[in-house]
Order: sequence, then C-alpha cells, then structure tokens
Amino acid sequence: MSNILGSVFKVLTFGESHGKLLGCLIDGIPSGFYVNKHKIQKELNLRKPGKSNLVSLRKEKDKLKIISGIFCNRTTGTPLGLIVYNKNKRSLDYKNISKKFRPGHADYTYYKKYNIRDYRGGGRSSARTTVSIVLAGSICKYILKDIYCIDFFSFISCVGGNVNYNSFSKNIKKTIKNKDSLGSSVNILVGNIPNGIGEPLFEKIESEISKTIMGLNAVKAIEFGSGIKCNSYKGSENNDNIYKHGFKSNNSGGVLGGISSGQNLKFTVHIKPTSSISKIQDTIDNNLVEEKIETTGRHDPCIGLRIIPIIESAVAIVIFDLILKHKFSFFF
Amino acid sequence: MSNILGSVFKVLTFGESHGKLLGCLIDGIPSGFYVNKHKIQKELNLRKPGKSNLVSLRKEKDKLKIISGIFCNRTTGTPLGLIVYNKNKRSLDYKNISKKFRPGHADYTYYKKYNIRDYRGGGRSSARTTVSIVLAGSICKYILKDIYCIDFFSFISCVGGNVNYNSFSKNIKKTIKNKDSLGSSVNILVGNIPNGIGEPLFEKIESEISKTIMGLNAVKAIEFGSGIKCNSYKGSENNDNIYKHGFKSNNSGGVLGGISSGQNLKFTVHIKPTSSISKIQDTIDNNLVEEKIETTGRHDPCIGLRIIPIIESAVAIVIFDLILKHKFSFFF
Amino acid sequence: MSNILGSVFKVLTFGESHGKLLGCLIDGIPSGFYVNKHKIQKELNLRKPGKSNLVSLRKEKDKLKIISGIFCNRTTGTPLGLIVYNKNKRSLDYKNISKKFRPGHADYTYYKKYNIRDYRGGGRSSARTTVSIVLAGSICKYILKDIYCIDFFSFISCVGGNVNYNSFSKNIKKTIKNKDSLGSSVNILVGNIPNGIGEPLFEKIESEISKTIMGLNAVKAIEFGSGIKCNSYKGSENNDNIYKHGFKSNNSGGVLGGISSGQNLKFTVHIKPTSSISKIQDTIDNNLVEEKIETTGRHDPCIGLRIIPIIESAVAIVIFDLILKHKFSFFF
Amino acid sequence: MSNILGSVFKVLTFGESHGKLLGCLIDGIPSGFYVNKHKIQKELNLRKPGKSNLVSLRKEKDKLKIISGIFCNRTTGTPLGLIVYNKNKRSLDYKNISKKFRPGHADYTYYKKYNIRDYRGGGRSSARTTVSIVLAGSICKYILKDIYCIDFFSFISCVGGNVNYNSFSKNIKKTIKNKDSLGSSVNILVGNIPNGIGEPLFEKIESEISKTIMGLNAVKAIEFGSGIKCNSYKGSENNDNIYKHGFKSNNSGGVLGGISSGQNLKFTVHIKPTSSISKIQDTIDNNLVEEKIETTGRHDPCIGLRIIPIIESAVAIVIFDLILKHKFSFFF
Repeated sequence: MSNILGSVFKVLTFGESHGKLLGCLIDGIPSGFYVNKHKIQKELNLRKPGKSNLVSLRKEKDKLKIISGIFCNRTTGTPLGLIVYNKNKRSLDYKNISKKFRPGHADYTYYKKYNIRDYRGGGRSSARTTVSIVLAGSICKYILKDIYCIDFFSFISCVGGNVNYNSFSKNIKKTIKNKDSLGSSVNILVGNIPNGIGEPLFEKIESEISKTIMGLNAVKAIEFGSGIKCNSYKGSENNDNIYKHGFKSNNSGGVLGGISSGQNLKFTVHIKPTSSISKIQDTIDNNLVEEKIETTGRHDPCIGLRIIPIIESAVAIVIFDLILKHKFSFFF
Repeated sequence: MSNILGSVFKVLTFGESHGKLLGCLIDGIPSGFYVNKHKIQKELNLRKPGKSNLVSLRKEKDKLKIISGIFCNRTTGTPLGLIVYNKNKRSLDYKNISKKFRPGHADYTYYKKYNIRDYRGGGRSSARTTVSIVLAGSICKYILKDIYCIDFFSFISCVGGNVNYNSFSKNIKKTIKNKDSLGSSVNILVGNIPNGIGEPLFEKIESEISKTIMGLNAVKAIEFGSGIKCNSYKGSENNDNIYKHGFKSNNSGGVLGGISSGQNLKFTVHIKPTSSISKIQDTIDNNLVEEKIETTGRHDPCIGLRIIPIIESAVAIVIFDLILKHKFSFFF
Repeated sequence: MSNILGSVFKVLTFGESHGKLLGCLIDGIPSGFYVNKHKIQKELNLRKPGKSNLVSLRKEKDKLKIISGIFCNRTTGTPLGLIVYNKNKRSLDYKNISKKFRPGHADYTYYKKYNIRDYRGGGRSSARTTVSIVLAGSICKYILKDIYCIDFFSFISCVGGNVNYNSFSKNIKKTIKNKDSLGSSVNILVGNIPNGIGEPLFEKIESEISKTIMGLNAVKAIEFGSGIKCNSYKGSENNDNIYKHGFKSNNSGGVLGGISSGQNLKFTVHIKPTSSISKIQDTIDNNLVEEKIETTGRHDPCIGLRIIPIIESAVAIVIFDLILKHKFSFFF
Repeated sequence: MSNILGSVFKVLTFGESHGKLLGCLIDGIPSGFYVNKHKIQKELNLRKPGKSNLVSLRKEKDKLKIISGIFCNRTTGTPLGLIVYNKNKRSLDYKNISKKFRPGHADYTYYKKYNIRDYRGGGRSSARTTVSIVLAGSICKYILKDIYCIDFFSFISCVGGNVNYNSFSKNIKKTIKNKDSLGSSVNILVGNIPNGIGEPLFEKIESEISKTIMGLNAVKAIEFGSGIKCNSYKGSENNDNIYKHGFKSNNSGGVLGGISSGQNLKFTVHIKPTSSISKIQDTIDNNLVEEKIETTGRHDPCIGLRIIPIIESAVAIVIFDLILKHKFSFFF
C-alpha cells in the first residue's frame, strides 16, 4: 500500500520489469487539460534505454498508450491511465540467478519481506519501473512549464569521483571493459518556482522532494542549497541576507521553513554505482549456501547518465501536487 | 493539511512557540499499551533547552500532561493526547522584529504563503514545535526498545567543520562570544531493525526517514550508508557481498530496495548553523524597505547539540509506522 | 486510526465522556479566517445537555477554549485546536455496571475489539464525543453561511412512530415516566448548495454525508430525496424533468451522479431509541455470567431532540471539505 | 481525486462506459495469495449484462485480464491490475443526446462540474463502471469465504412497490413494454463476520458500508438492522438483550458502536428506477433550450436484478479493508 505518489494529484504506478506492461493511473488530474501525446513521448524517449553504447542495451520503444480518462484528447476529471508495453524482455537471462541474491540488489529483502520473488529483471524493484514516473511526470512538467513557466536545468556533476565533464565518457567506457560500474552525482535547479509552495510541518518542499528522490533506485544522498558544506559554515556566512530586489545568496536552495522563497530551487543527488556488474561476486542462495555470482543481463554502467529525466519528472509531480495544495492555504 | 506524520500510526502535532501549549494527538496507537510517563518525561528532558550555557537559555519544564486516550494508564485504542505548556515565553523580545524578516528564517515565506505571520518566536515555524515529535516519538522509542530490542546510537560528528570531538565546546563558546552560530553533522545508527521493514515503491525506509528528517528545522542534507562518497565508488567496491552469516560490509546503510536488510540502519544528517544570530544582518520589512536586523531572543548556537533526541524520536515514529504496515505484507 | 473526518479539511476529534476534556484539531483550515468564539459557543449551546427536563440532566457549560492555531483571532494556516472541559462527570454512576454489558451499547464490542473498556459513561463511544463535531462543524457552518449563503433547515419529523409535532413532548414525558426511550426521525434540508460539489466515484456528496451521519451515535438509516419510497416508483415518476428555469421536482434530493445539482440537498435520518434505559434488561458480564441490568446515569429519552445541531455540524464539515476539493476539478 | 476505495487495501478504479477498457488497480494486496481467475470470472459473469430479456441487452464478455502484480499466479505484494475490455459499444446511440441532459442522470452535474462531458453511455458516470468493483471485490469475497468463512445471503425484496417474489418478472416485462423502469429494494445479510471489525469513530462498519453502497449508481437509501422502523420503537423493544449464548434479537443489524458484534450483519438497500427510459421526457440542452428527450441505448428496466453481485463485491472490499485494519487495534 505504498505505490501512490502525491496526495491531491495522486499517481499510482504499477507493472514489473518483465511483466506485460508498465503504467500509471492519475487520480486527481483536473478536467479540461489537453493531453499532448508528443510531449509525453518526447520525455519517454529521453529516458529510454538502448540509445548508445554507454547505457543499457535493452531496446524498448516505450510507446505511450492512453487507456482511460480522456475525451477528445482532453482530461475529463476521471482517472487518467497511461501505459507502455514491455517488448524486449529476456527473462531467460535471469534464470540462472533465480535462487541467488545479487549483491546490492533488492532480491534479498523482497524475498524476506514478501516470501516470493519475481527474479525476472528484478520484478517491481527494477529501475524499469521509473518509466511510470516519467509517464505521469512528463504531463506535470509541461503543465508547470506552460502555466507557471517553471523550468528545469540539470546536469551530471560527477562520474566515478571525477568532476571533469570531458572525462565522463572515457571513464565509463573503461568501466564497461572492466565489467564494473560507476557512482555519480547530478545537480538539479528548478527556476521560476512561485513563492509559497510547500506545506509545513510535514510536507515541506524539501521533505517531499527528498522522499521521492531518495526512493528512486540507487539514490543514496540528497542535499539542498549549501548542503553538506553547511556543517562548516557560520550563521553569518550561511544566512542569505535580503535586499529590496531579492536575496544576496542562495545557500537555502530556494526553501525557507519548507516553503519556496521564489529563488531557484537547488539540490544535488548522489547515486551509487549500478549494483548489476558482471564481475564475480560472493553471495548466498535461498538455502543460505554460499555461491559465486556474475550478473549478466543488460545494465547501465553509470546511472547518472539516465536518471535526469526521471528526477525531473518525479520533482514535477511533487511540485504540481504542492501547487494544487497551496490553493487551500488562504481564503480569497 | 500537512501536520500529520505517519500513515497508520498517525501523529498530528500542534501548537506554536509562544502559544498556550504544544502537543500531539496520536490516532492509531493500539490498545493495551502501558503509557510510562517517566520514560516520556526522560526523553523530553533530553531535548529540553536551558540546561547548559552551550544551548538556548529559554527555561521550560516541558512537563508532560496526558489529555486523552488512556484508562488506568493503558491506551484504549482511542486518540492519545499529550501536551506540554509553554511557560517561559518572552514575546516582547520579538516585538521589534515583528515587521522585519530574519535572514535564514521562515518569516518571509510564511508571510508570503499565509498572508499573516505570528512573529512571536517564529510561531509554528519555531524549532520549539519539535517537542511534539519527542512527545510521540518517545513512546515509539520505548515500544521499539521493549518489543523489538531496537536501539539507537547517535553522536555529533562535526561542529563548524571540525571533526575533533574535544574541540566542540571550545568552538561553540568562541562562536557565542562572536554573536554567531555553527553548522554541524550527526551520525545515526539504528540497531536490531528487523528484516523486511519499508514499503516500496514510495514508502521506502530511506524515503520516509528522509522526508521526516529533512523536514526538521535547519536540516540541509541526508546520506545513507556510503552516502555522498558513493559517487566515487565502483560497483565492485560499493556492493555489499553476502556470506552465510551476513553481509561483508554496510555501504547500503542497512537498506536494499527500500526494505531493511537486517543490518544496522546507518545515516548522517547535516545541519546548517542556527539562523538566529545577534550579528547585524541586512534584511527588508513588510514594505520592502531595507533594514538592519539583530536577532535577539534566546537561541542555540549549534543545533547539533540538541537535535539528536529529536531525530531519534522522529525516526522511531517512522519505523514504528512501517513495522505496523509490514503486518499487511503477506498472508499468515 | 479512524478519528479523522474530512480529507482536505481534516478534523481529528479526541476525548472521552468522563475524561479531562473533549476537543478537535483541524488540520487544513485556511489562514486569515476570523474565528468568532461567540458563534461557536452558540452552536455548542444548541447541543448542550441539561437545558430542559426532556433531555439528559448532565450539566455541562461546554465553554470553548482555543488551544492553538490563531494569532490575533485569525487562523494562521496551522492546526486549530478547540476544546471544552468535562466538568459534571459522575463516574461512580457507572461503577456497578463496569463489568456488565449494557444492551444496545458499544460496551460489548469495544471490550471484544480493544480488550480494555473505559466504562465511565461509555468512554469514547459516548454521544458526548459529538461535542467535538460541533466544535469543528460550527466553524464550517458559519463559513458556509457567510461565504456561500448556505442555509440549514431541519426539523424532527417523527417521535416514537408519531408524526404529529404537538404530541412529541407529551410522548416523551410518558416515556421518561416508564423508564423507557423513543426512536425518532429528523429531516434535513440544505439550501443554496452550489452546483458541482461532490467527488465521484467514491466521495459523492451522498456517500460522504451517509458515512458521516451513519457514524453518529444511534443513527440506523438514511435516505436521500424520494428515498425508500423510490422502490415503488416508475422512472417516469421519479425522474426530475428539467426546464429552462430548473428542475420540476426534487426526487433526487439535490444530487445527480454524486454531484450537487443546485437544488436543495434533502435527506432524512432515522434514529433508534436511546439504548440507556432504567428498565431492567437481560445481559451478561465479562465472565459470560447472565445478569440483570438497569442503566442509571443521565440520558436523553429521545435522541432526535438533540441530534439536529450535531447533524448540521457534521454535514457542514463534509460540505466544506467537498467545496475545497472541488477547487481541483478543473483548470482555470 | 476520489476514485480510491479502501484505505489499507486500496482499490483504484478507472475506465469509462465507452472507453477502451475498465479496470482496477489494487495497492495493498498481501503477497502470496493465489489469484483464481475462474472465481473472479464467475463473479463477473453474475454481474454481466445481456443474459436475459429482463436486463440490459448490451453484450459484453467481460473477460478478465491481469496486467500486473502476479508471479506464477500468486500476488507479489505489488499493485494487482485487473481489466476487462469494452467490446459491444454503440456510441452512436448517444450522438443525438450529446447536448441534451437526460433527466435523473449525471449528465447535467458532470457538465457543470467538469465543463466537459463524455456523453457516450454516460462516460465515467455509467453503471458499467461497477465492473471494476466486481473485479476487486470478487477477490475479497473469496478471501473472506476461504479464510474467514464469511458468507453473503442476498435477495430482492421489492420491485416496483411489490414484495411478492412471484410477480417480479411479470411486473418488469410490463414496464419494458411501457418504455418505463421500476424501483426496487434488496436485502443483504453477511454471515460469520468476526467480532471487533469496524474502526470508530469515523470508519465504523456501517459508515464505511453506507459510504460505499450509497455511492453505487441509483441507490437512494440504506438501513441497518431495525432501520427506519426504529423511529417507532421504544428502547425496551429495540435493544437486543444478551444471554450466555448470544443476543436475543438482531435489531442492531450486527453492529454496536460501529463494531461488529459477531451477529449477522444485516442491511437493506433501496434503489431508484433506472433513469434511462424511452418515454418522452422534458429537458434542456447545453444552451438552456427546452427539448424533448427519449433515452434510447440499452438499459436495465430494474436495477435490483443486477445490483446484488455489485453490492456484495463492494461490501467485501469494505470488510476486508476493515479486517486488515483491525490487526492494528491491539498489541499481541
């Protein structure tokens, strides 16, 4: 009972890596909104695997289908259903590890929690499920853009400890050759967020974003504004003084007391190296017998290369949900 | 509509820094549980201000009162109400800044969002409201301890950029003299968490903890397990290999796929320097007129010194809520 | 985990019949709203027991106290806390039945469900807890009146099977003398409800009202518009034909497809005779031993005489919550 | 934002009368449960239209497809998706009324609320959407049967004001000939409900059932136990006395204080005559021009004949959700 994102604009995601399809149902999308399939497909394409030799080779068209909620291409206020079919499954790749737990993966914990495990590509724990987030988030993204002029600026800031952008591809190619993977960081900046978004105490803007982003596969840390470095600052250094025309600095990352201040929303996300590597590792099987494991299948060597459209979609859902809730903050 | 923490064990917090009282109502506490006032009071005392010259000088007894939900000291399954009265208010301290926005504070955003501002000690945006979290969390903490043997081990790992424990007090004293404040970091380790806790996809254990902790006053970053450093690791370094008797390392921080693995839950929280400093700063007032501001009142020079019981309480609420929800994961 | 009414305007109620106090916390009340204590007190007084010899003799002042959420008498967007103290408790009246289950009461089921029972006046199962509904509902009622001109017209339509208004008092006096109680019905009409309120499929206006009203103590049936009689109608009789200036009839009760049509909202509520009677009845005790029981204490002989302000408050909460949610139905 | 039924076992329904498909997503179904397609299909067949000349002639196979949430036919704890395709749509039947409001229908209010109207068979307001309730409810029904031995006994008790079972068909045939429709009543009895189910104050068993059943198309009234007649009873008549071996009567309908008492749950539902009739009626169009209307299309002449499997499914969802929540009521 935890597959719903958002509390007023509710996105229920469903589907598994090697199931029939993946999708989302949106309960709470206002009526009268034109659903632009091309814009959604464009975002899906940004996320899509198989586009270069630096990412997963799984070939999926991820072609959008709308199953409910529209009439003459406009939303009717009823649940909007969006899906893509899984086409390029190779479940047999996973047969040999169906009883072994892949290190760094959710195999072990899903098995312990649910007493059943869909080993085919990790089932529901697969990063493939993030396609559902892009399905819903792409709509939010262009609502935010068209109605509120909210923009996203995001970039990869670190790959394998290296912050020099020019070396990223070189590093990744070397890592692929070594049957290994690399950690990374991405920086996100959201411009033109209106003032007043975020619901204290427990649905602050950074709370809701952290919840959502820390829930994405492989994310291990998040920092807002001056972030971790704030632990070495003095108040007089970290406080953003205020002038007639705005703030002097943006150490807050655009949030004060959980509410957007009108400055750019600024945060950084840190992503662990892909758990699936074809190097030999130590593990156990269902019966606690120690085994060696090589994770074959098709995987991304560095998640940072594909995570940005997913993060942006997830954040767009969060922000749109908070914007809707903000309508309740005051009378008239 | 955002003052409720937890979804099955629901904690609604209420009250303001200079209001009559602060408290929480717990909807969803099972019946038959012995409410040990001494244990709750002990946690309140750990959080209490005014205990040394390194922390806020506001003197509050924070004496627990139970207003509903018990019969013969046991919970009845009805809403449990806990409060403490505000006694040592000095609202006049804030009169002179009632129309100025304190840099780094929520004054500006609350005013923009709600079009009204309770300037007395920051109203609801004050860290004083965390007493409500300790009220509810202290109960969870001892339920977790008594029933599941779950333990918390926490410590301050950094004060003002300095990681040498012996220098912390010296640093803080110097900062007080300079009318300034210091950032800090704390490390949290939760032992004996059972396997299987956490509800993917969107209520993962690290999602829920991040949401709650990033929502605490002054927190700017959170990292799990290898955390930020994971951006420089290879998969073969970061993956925790598995042996018959457990995991070889704990880079995951005790969570795989959002579900507890049975290892220690391990995370680090980074806290900005207190925004309230008595150094002169630049700001504006309600009418956009530029002003100088000195934040008097009684404030903590370094939040890290008082945040640990608050974090532990908040995490205890999150974990207990997830443990209850885990009861639904499987049949029989 | 079920003491919250409303999903956007959330009312958490708490307290017991013989506890220290009763109250509600409202999470989601917009900021800037003037809280008129006199208007709330007036509604509390309408509900108050002890006002005549036809109702319960318990004397309670039910004086309103506000414990959080306001600044200069205006809401701040933070949780609004309202309470009344219990003053005129006579818990000893209940000592002799502390181990017997009163027929028609919740004693038996609370004991079975929670394995603990607050026998003092029924604890949380007492109709005294409806004071919390009036606390929150009175605010909604005057918001609805002042902002939307929504009016309530309600009356008792049946007492003990008798529909002649003039005989009601006479009947009740006779029943008191016989140590018995009487069932009743009340009719509710809500005027000036705007068009479009109600959220299909599962938060239809009649769904939400039925949920709330069927949850009030002693209510056994509810009917909208033509109600039960619709089972003997033909479609051609029951359909409300539409003209340029409105509907020809109101068999729908003001709701079509769960959404208000702009007609008067019209429904009838049927209430069982008070379970507490001083006639001797058969029952068992905790150990399954058969016993005789006389329910002393102070009770209403006919609930219909006091339920109207409670129903109106409950419906006002439901309607205000749905009006807020309606803001999300469409863009612009 | 109102298409979700249940709060722990959450059923999101979606789809329209003449859309591509109808379905439900269940978030919160425990893992390890065997999904028996035949049992679900059997319930779908009970609800199916087109089976005799007394019901709607629309021919739908309503063949179950599972789109997510299972592995080897067992639930995995992830969202379970169930759909049926719409095959026998005749949208052109509705073209001529696309701008007229059918009396007794939701056309008018949907148009007012959402400013857009899917006129094809009523879109989402159609009773066809109840197929989604049967999809989810059929699973609950057999869980309740297999695990808790909970049984449903239901029957039509009134058709067009007539309570003689033998005359029902004759009445309906006559009504069809007259291009009209008939109201009806059904009685529901649920046996073997365990003690303690229902969550006071606001999720009482009769609250949740009333909410759900009053939300079904065409339902206008619901009564529990002695129901409406309680308004003419005395307390001494209506109270169910208690003996060693149980209750003497069941005027409560199996619920005391909102919690199941272990007696049979007993309630009656009253259903208006189908709004769609081919008799000529008065109405207006989008531009307030007065018009005559004949509702063609294929419709049930008496909803009572088809509503029972829908009510049972809806109630099964409610009860299963409350059974799951009851797990939280007490420690150990």
